[in-house]
Amino acid sequence: MTELQHALDLISRGSEEILKREELEARLRTSVQDGGRPLRIKAGFDPTAPDLHIGHTVLLNKMRQFQDLGHQVIFLIGDFTGMIGDPTGKNVTRKPLTREDVAANAQTYADQVFKVLDRERTEVRFNSEWFGAMDAAGMIKLAAQHTVARMLERDDFAKRYAAQQPIAIHEFLYPLVQGYDSVALKADVELGGTDQKFNLLMGRGLQEHFGQPPQIVLTMPLLEGLDGVNKMSKSLGNYIGINEPAIDIVTKAMKVGDALMWKWIDLLSFEIGVDEAKVLRRDIEGGALNPRDVKLRLARELAARFHGDAEADKAVAGWHAAVRGEGDVSNLPLHEILVPAGGLRIAALLVAAGLMPSNSEASRKLKERAVRVDGEVFEDVARVFTPGFEGVIAVGKRNFARVHLRAAA
Amino acid sequence: MTELQHALDLISRGSEEILKREELEARLRTSVQDGGRPLRIKAGFDPTAPDLHIGHTVLLNKMRQFQDLGHQVIFLIGDFTGMIGDPTGKNVTRKPLTREDVAANAQTYADQVFKVLDRERTEVRFNSEWFGAMDAAGMIKLAAQHTVARMLERDDFAKRYAAQQPIAIHEFLYPLVQGYDSVALKADVELGGTDQKFNLLMGRGLQEHFGQPPQIVLTMPLLEGLDGVNKMSKSLGNYIGINEPAIDIVTKAMKVGDALMWKWIDLLSFEIGVDEAKVLRRDIEGGALNPRDVKLRLARELAARFHGDAEADKAVAGWHAAVRGEGDVSNLPLHEILVPAGGLRIAALLVAAGLMPSNSEASRKLKERAVRVDGEVFEDVARVFTPGFEGVIAVGKRNFARVHLRAAA
Repeated sequence: MTELQHALDLISRGSEEILKREELEARLRTSVQDGGRPLRIKAGFDPTAPDLHIGHTVLLNKMRQFQDLGHQVIFLIGDFTGMIGDPTGKNVTRKPLTREDVAANAQTYADQVFKVLDRERTEVRFNSEWFGAMDAAGMIKLAAQHTVARMLERDDFAKRYAAQQPIAIHEFLYPLVQGYDSVALKADVELGGTDQKFNLLMGRGLQEHFGQPPQIVLTMPLLEGLDGVNKMSKSLGNYIGINEPAIDIVTKAMKVGDALMWKWIDLLSFEIGVDEAKVLRRDIEGGALNPRDVKLRLARELAARFHGDAEADKAVAGWHAAVRGEGDVSNLPLHEILVPAGGLRIAALLVAAGLMPSNSEASRKLKERAVRVDGEVFEDVARVFTPGFEGVIAVGKRNFARVHLRAAA
Repeated sequence: MTELQHALDLISRGSEEILKREELEARLRTSVQDGGRPLRIKAGFDPTAPDLHIGHTVLLNKMRQFQDLGHQVIFLIGDFTGMIGDPTGKNVTRKPLTREDVAANAQTYADQVFKVLDRERTEVRFNSEWFGAMDAAGMIKLAAQHTVARMLERDDFAKRYAAQQPIAIHEFLYPLVQGYDSVALKADVELGGTDQKFNLLMGRGLQEHFGQPPQIVLTMPLLEGLDGVNKMSKSLGNYIGINEPAIDIVTKAMKVGDALMWKWIDLLSFEIGVDEAKVLRRDIEGGALNPRDVKLRLARELAARFHGDAEADKAVAGWHAAVRGEGDVSNLPLHEILVPAGGLRIAALLVAAGLMPSNSEASRKLKERAVRVDGEVFEDVARVFTPGFEGVIAVGKRNFARVHLRAAA
């Protein structure tokens, strides 16, 4: 396989759309084969305080792959519009950020993203650099570069306009601001989520207007969360935060369904490459491999990325201890559960620990012999767990918790 | 009649719409009765080189009336957008104006408008004063103050959008620019043509946003031209330029139909007030007065406004000479008409001089004894007018020309 083909394969992995693929190929050829300059890869980020989950790292991973191929990555913080805030005055929670807020948030980003990105090959930029110097006439000239009809084609605008929900005129300027960032940065490629496609395309038109070759647009899918259905998000609780303890990362990652696992591998794994993933998949389908073992490799890789190898190994051991009832459980996170002074029976305890949605569901699992306490199948439905009890309770292989009971005041 | 009532009557005269009348009354009351400050009256003008006709003076006259009432008039030249030009790059004839262009055009304006306005009570301003100092963020904040849906309600935008003709986004910013001018100028009243109503209302909303009482909007109708049908305009040829010779002003004004005359008096005359106009109208309807005499007063007033009394008197005398065949015609403009060496009969001559649309129409007028040469009814349809002939030819009382025939080469 040629170097160019390798680069194309790696870049394409997990991507939703590449516009236009032949342009990417041509530009990579110039850069890789003909010894040209590294490509400039842009991705934009909100200037509000970030608290990243692994859904966010899908984009960072793609940036990292470009870095590994020798290209220049630009981590762009869109502070210009953040410092404007909500000029309609309707959203009081969206206060204008100060320059100090922006600097602090940039540091918070840095603390997180350099767990994925190579700091040395990352250019961190702020778009206030060029927009702070632009005057009102410049903004008008920029606004002249697109039409109202074109802007109303954007999905969310089209829906709001049809539903007669107000769209403030400055909202039409923000995609142009994002597009002009590509001009200022002379981007070769811009990365973004599929929901950003419209805005990413703005850059192409503006770059052509300003006499630059139009950037290639590469969109990445949104990562489904632990529920396997919805996009990963804080508000849905189906996420893995990158700052969560290693054991939580492993435990949560192990809850992902077998089907979704392959998508997660494409979007999140560096260690399991495209070719190996194919082999693993064949082995599992043939019954030669337990999907749990592949999932555990991914879980360990994620834990190691954000906490290092030692922590990751301890977390995996903890997971084995809890699920298989063997080994040291002391590094599992301990959850304090408040119970009545008289204690709780097992069904109620499983509900209190958040492992079961209801007593009746818990009873059903008990009858199925799916409930274990400290590794042993547990059937004594009448036993009362009193304050002071400490141990690992589990339902099936994925749901478990190390708990310590305390009397409610 | 109170001073306030007098002011209201004068301001209302000829106006199309006042929004809101009760606000105007309240503000005038504070200013006039309670000895408050003069009101600030804004009217905006294009920064492109002006060549005014009396249709343009409708607005200037209203400004002058405010001045006569003691208020402060602001003659605003919208140079900010003029210096941007056409940022879509599609209209090559709309080149950006330089600062020198703007200054030269302002001088051209001054040479003309101070024939109507009182120079001492006119503040000439340029909106580059505040927009030149505004940054891109300021323009975004301004854009946030109106919605896309609201902007698409403007007649011309609605039509273009419906017809799928492109509307560039910066076109949505221009009404906001005009509106913000009212904020910067703290305008109490903005004047404009009826076609400007939407833009004038922008100022109200923006002033409220910026904590100012919203300006009163006063629209003036567009003046119908000499044809009595279309808006006066250069391109339709139905206009009286303010720099035309006095005799042309009188001659053209005398062609206005009797019905339209009253509207012209409302919009153009200072000498014939509201009350006198009523008396004149009654006298004409009663047969005590010939409408021509009233029209002649208006024609003389217009000629005097732009050329002084002496020129106006000479022009009126010239008109009498031509129409009635008495007195000196030498100060009438002389039109050179090219004719075949063999000459032309009267019908063809009337067509060549532009007094009749066709030979057959001319023949009809000859039969009606409506054609005169040098004041005498002319019926000799066979007579040939040869090169060298000079005289006044007329059809009816309004259409005449002093001509000199020359052989076509």
